[in-house]
Order: sequence, then structure tokens, then C-alpha cells
Amino acid sequence: MRTRAAIATKAVAPLEIAEVELDGPRAGEVLVEIRATGICHTDEFTRSGADPEGIFPAILGHEGAGVVVEVGAGVTGLRPGDHVIPLYTPECRECEYCLNPKTNLCQKIRSTQGQGLMPDGTSRFRTLDGEPIFHYMGCSTFANHTVVPEIALAKVRQDAPFDKICYIGCGVTTGIGAVINTAKVEIGSRAIVFGLGGIGLNVIQGLRLAGADQIVGVDLNPDKKPMAERFGMTDFVNPAEVEGDLVPFLVDLTRGGADYTFDATGNVDVMRTALESAHKGWGESIIIGVAPAGAEISTRPFQLVTGRVWRGTAFGGARGRTDVPKIVDWYMQGKIEIDPMITHTLSLDEINKGFDLMHAGESIRSVVVY
Amino acid sequence: MRTRAAIATKAVAPLEIAEVELDGPRAGEVLVEIRATGICHTDEFTRSGADPEGIFPAILGHEGAGVVVEVGAGVTGLRPGDHVIPLYTPECRECEYCLNPKTNLCQKIRSTQGQGLMPDGTSRFRTLDGEPIFHYMGCSTFANHTVVPEIALAKVRQDAPFDKICYIGCGVTTGIGAVINTAKVEIGSRAIVFGLGGIGLNVIQGLRLAGADQIVGVDLNPDKKPMAERFGMTDFVNPAEVEGDLVPFLVDLTRGGADYTFDATGNVDVMRTALESAHKGWGESIIIGVAPAGAEISTRPFQLVTGRVWRGTAFGGARGRTDVPKIVDWYMQGKIEIDPMITHTLSLDEINKGFDLMHAGESIRSVVVY
Repeated sequence: MRTRAAIATKAVAPLEIAEVELDGPRAGEVLVEIRATGICHTDEFTRSGADPEGIFPAILGHEGAGVVVEVGAGVTGLRPGDHVIPLYTPECRECEYCLNPKTNLCQKIRSTQGQGLMPDGTSRFRTLDGEPIFHYMGCSTFANHTVVPEIALAKVRQDAPFDKICYIGCGVTTGIGAVINTAKVEIGSRAIVFGLGGIGLNVIQGLRLAGADQIVGVDLNPDKKPMAERFGMTDFVNPAEVEGDLVPFLVDLTRGGADYTFDATGNVDVMRTALESAHKGWGESIIIGVAPAGAEISTRPFQLVTGRVWRGTAFGGARGRTDVPKIVDWYMQGKIEIDPMITHTLSLDEINKGFDLMHAGESIRSVVVY
Repeated sequence: MRTRAAIATKAVAPLEIAEVELDGPRAGEVLVEIRATGICHTDEFTRSGADPEGIFPAILGHEGAGVVVEVGAGVTGLRPGDHVIPLYTPECRECEYCLNPKTNLCQKIRSTQGQGLMPDGTSRFRTLDGEPIFHYMGCSTFANHTVVPEIALAKVRQDAPFDKICYIGCGVTTGIGAVINTAKVEIGSRAIVFGLGGIGLNVIQGLRLAGADQIVGVDLNPDKKPMAERFGMTDFVNPAEVEGDLVPFLVDLTRGGADYTFDATGNVDVMRTALESAHKGWGESIIIGVAPAGAEISTRPFQLVTGRVWRGTAFGGARGRTDVPKIVDWYMQGKIEIDPMITHTLSLDEINKGFDLMHAGESIRSVVVY
């Protein structure tokens, strides 16, 4: 079939909107009509050429929601008409990783996904000239139709709006999951969130959901304050306005250091500040942000020997097929908010504007609606 | 009263054996006759002048065992004749740290202990000329008699030999505790221990106690192999004999990386290797060794984002008054071994020989018996 897509033809270049050929689903695969997709920093990381593992030409996008159109042989858990969210971290429920309760990093289709291919080692996308186009993160939601393995699709309720729940495909789950799955924040905790962008705001509402007593937000941009307060931030700190070192200031503000700190900036210096402003004896610091290629974190080992713990999280530690439908329910029940974070809605033809808004810092999340 | 002690008169100098004046115990304090004490690398760290917080003159030693001689006002949990092990990490059971099950770092007397003083801000030791001598780590076991706060004494059974259980005051508890309290190693785990000295050997027997399936020991000195095997090591790796990078070799040997890795070297480069040879998704790396002043650990944050956890441990995460008596029981029951690790027994007059043996790598542990 033919469908419309935004193609990353090569690094740095703007995406090109064009018709592409899409083969039908093979065994274990599902054809999905994407109805909405968010534009995430990770897409830009690859588009810009900063991603050393970027492959071109590819159809980017990994934060979508849509409807099942057709299922391949052996697909038993989904049928046409089901509403789904594609998962860049799949959940096969049978690999060594899925069977270990300590991790969500299903490895079942890891190698082919990293090569921009479906599990059988081929691509479903081609240009009208017959040239193959690579998949991206196993999702490629910047196409109106895409093919995704069944194990990489979360089935969600039918009454949830696509243009909001697509954000659960990455940002919402990453932020909230970092709090509840990775950090396992307890009621009454004190926490610090570094970076009040889309991920940071979701960490904040995750902390509110978990019953944190103090939620400190740290950002150089004071314009971020009102939105963060809306999501539950109790204290705002602008590092530019703090005299002296930031760590002792934050330790004092949280009465000895935070029980949990979260880096949502991707800056390795901030990651160190986050670790060192965690409480002696038991504070845990969670790295969410993706650092530039080659960047390293560092600290004195004494920070760990005196009880701090350094962790990271990917997709918020969520097992997508199990956890994403629950988060959709929480949204529909009003336990979490998404609407105020979707600041811009665009058509596929306007998708490059979404990247411009991201760079200008004007959007929290831009969503393309097909 | 007068007692004999080894005095660190100044950095670098050998210890001087001399008689000293010792005041009796004040409120909350206990006079202990030390019957045996181990000589630990931490004592040498301070004696050598490498410890930036070292204070002189002081009576070093923090790995002792002895008998209560006299108790001060208000001491209710101990009486003359009780056998005790002094604790450089006390357990007051009422501070914010003791009341938090996530940490063992009691802060009750932290500030005075760090200044080489008893909790009331004074020292009990003086030279015969009346010059004050500082306490060390709240213990000062390099004196035949010492004064220790009640909250820093573990009461142990009377039939345990002082010249063996003194080692539980630091090395044994640090190594075994890192496994069972900090890492909480599960039966069937795979583990790697870097450094097969006194701490590393105790990590190994802790892993055996915890039911680990694979216990890899890493050391540049192949002479360490037989003793480590005796304590439970299943695989020995000499990095000098590994072609190429050590990390992929260890990851392969442990079928994807170890569930738990332990640094018992204090070398920050080894700490990085330890982290990176932990299993993707769930591997945890525990820093036990004390690094040189100013040294920093580093890695790519991707190592944490893909599920590895970086921790540290002090005194093996043990709450001394509660846990040390149990470890003494384990020794008396034959669950753990100590005797083969006590390679040298010395008199107080020979204490400087103990430091020489440490430097020559000839001892695992030298113990001074009074």
C-alpha cells in the first residue's frame, strides 16, 4: 500500500514529506494506522546527526498512537480496530530480560531494531522508486501507516484521544515511570527534578502521584515555573540566582539532601549535581536524560560509599504492554494530566515546524495529527 | 590510670610504644581492656599522612575486641566483664539515620568522632607529660585500655577468641556485609570481586554464604588464588593474562555480566571496570575500597541508563550493635572462617612490623595481642 510519511533522507536535512510504499505485515507483525505522534528530542537527536547510531534514509517518530488495520500470521493478541501505542521498548514476556523482574529492557528484537529493520531483517518501507527506507526505534510513527511487531504494541482503551495519549508512548511514561518503577518513590519523600521540559514535568507529576512531600524543580529558565507548579512542583530554584555552590543550597533546601533526585537534562555536569544533592545514607539519583556521545559522568567515590545510589532509567522502567494501558487509564481517570503539555498541534506537512518550536523552547510537546 | 599504647605522634613516623594516662569513663562511656586488635589499611592510610583528615598525636586502631572494665554514669546495656567489639560506626538507635532502615551511618557522635574526641568534646588520653592525645575513629584499639561510648560497643558472646573476632570489628563485617546488607545478593547470583586482599576474601565468603553460583576473583597477584579458592572463589582472572579489554572478557565469563560486582581495591579505574562488567538491565556494582584523596570515578551515563546500579558501602552496611554479635555467632558456628586470614600475631611492641608486613603483601591480617 501507499501512505504518507516524513522521511529523514540524511543527517541534518529537514524531513521530506512524501508518499512511500509500505508492505503488509509479515508473521508476528501488525499494520497500524498512526493517528497522532509526538515529536521528541530523541527524534531530533537522530535527525540532527548527533546520534552516532543514526541510519538514513529512515522514517523517524516513536511516540504515536493509532488503530490496528491488519495483523500478520500468528498474531493472536490484537485484531483490526484495536487502539494501540507502539513501543520502542517491546515486551515479549519470554526473554531472559522480560523474565527478570528487575528490568524492562526486552532484548527479543534488539539487534534488528537497532539496524532499522523488522525482526526478519528486512524493511517494510520503500520509496516510490523502490529504494528501501529504514524503520526507527521499531516504531516509525512519522508515517500515517506503519508496521510494528505485535510484542511492541500496547493495546489501550478505545475512548482515549489519540492526540493526547500518543505522548504516553515516550515522554509521559519515561517521566512517571522513572518515579514509580525505577526510583520507587515512597509517600512523604523529598525530591529534586533537574530540567523542567517535557520529561521533567512528567517526573513532577509522577512525584505528586507518589505522594512526595517536597518537589523541587531546577531550571535556568524562570518561564518554566508556572507550568511546573501546575504539575506539583513545591519549590523552584534557578541556579543562576543561587550564590555559591548549588549542591549545598539544595541540600539545605531539602533538609539534608533529597531522598530522590532526577536528571532530565542530559547534561553530565547536572547529573553530578543531582547525585551530590541526594541525601547522605540513602539518597538515590536517577539519570533520565540522554548525554551527548562520549560524555562521561564523574564524582568522588566517597559520595557512594556514604550511601548515595546512582541509577538510570530507560522508558521509565516500564514494561510497555503491561504498564502503558494503565497509564492511559490514569489519564482518563484524571490521575495525571497531559493536555496542558501538548502545546502545539500540527499536520504532517508542518512537522519541520515542530522541530523549530523545540529549538526555540516554545513548545513542551508538539503533536502531529494525521 | 596508666596503660600502654602505640602512639602516632605525627604523620609518616613509626608508631611509638609508650605508657599513657587514661581518664575513666564519663557519662555514657565505657572503659574497655583491649585484648586484641587487627592492623587495617585504614590505620596505615592515616599513619602514612595520606588521610587529609588525619589528626596527630593520636592512638590509632579500630579493629579490636576486649572486656568491659568500668562503665560511666547512665550506661545500662553493659557491665564489667562483658566482652565487646568497638564500633567505628556506632548505633544509637535514635538518630534520623538509625531510624531509617536504608542506612547504617549513625550520626549521633559523628562530629566529635571526626575530631578525635569523645562526645563531650574532650579526650581521655594524655601523655605522661599531660599533653592530650586524640582518639581515632572513636576506638583507639592500639591501646591496652581505651574509653568508648556505649553506643559504639557491640556486646558479644564470652566464648569467642579475642584474637580472631577482633577482625569482625572491621574487615570481616565490611566484606560480608557488603554482600548481605548492601547488595542483598540472592541465591544463584553470579558475582565478580576485584582485589583479593583481606576485604575481598571476606566478600568471597559472604557470597558463598549467600549462595552465589559463580564467584569470580580478579587480582594481579596469582599467589592470592589458593586462599581465595578456599573461601569460595570459583574462577580466578589475572588481568595481566587477559588479551584485549577486561570488561568484555568478564562479561563473557559471567554469561552477560555479573549480577553483582565488588571493588575491594580502592582504585578508581578498577571501580569503572567493576561497574561496566555488571549485567545490563540489573547488575549492581558496590564500591568498598577507599580511593586516594581527590580521585574520581567516571563512566558513560549510558551504563546506568541501560540498567546498571552504582552503590557504595561503609562498614558493610552493618548496624554494629545489632549485626556484629550475629557475625561472631556465625564464626563460632563455623558458617564463616576467620582463622586462615589471621596470618600474623604480634605483641604491641612489634606493631610497626605489622605495617611492614602489610606493605610487603605478606600478611592478610596481622593481629596485635595484648
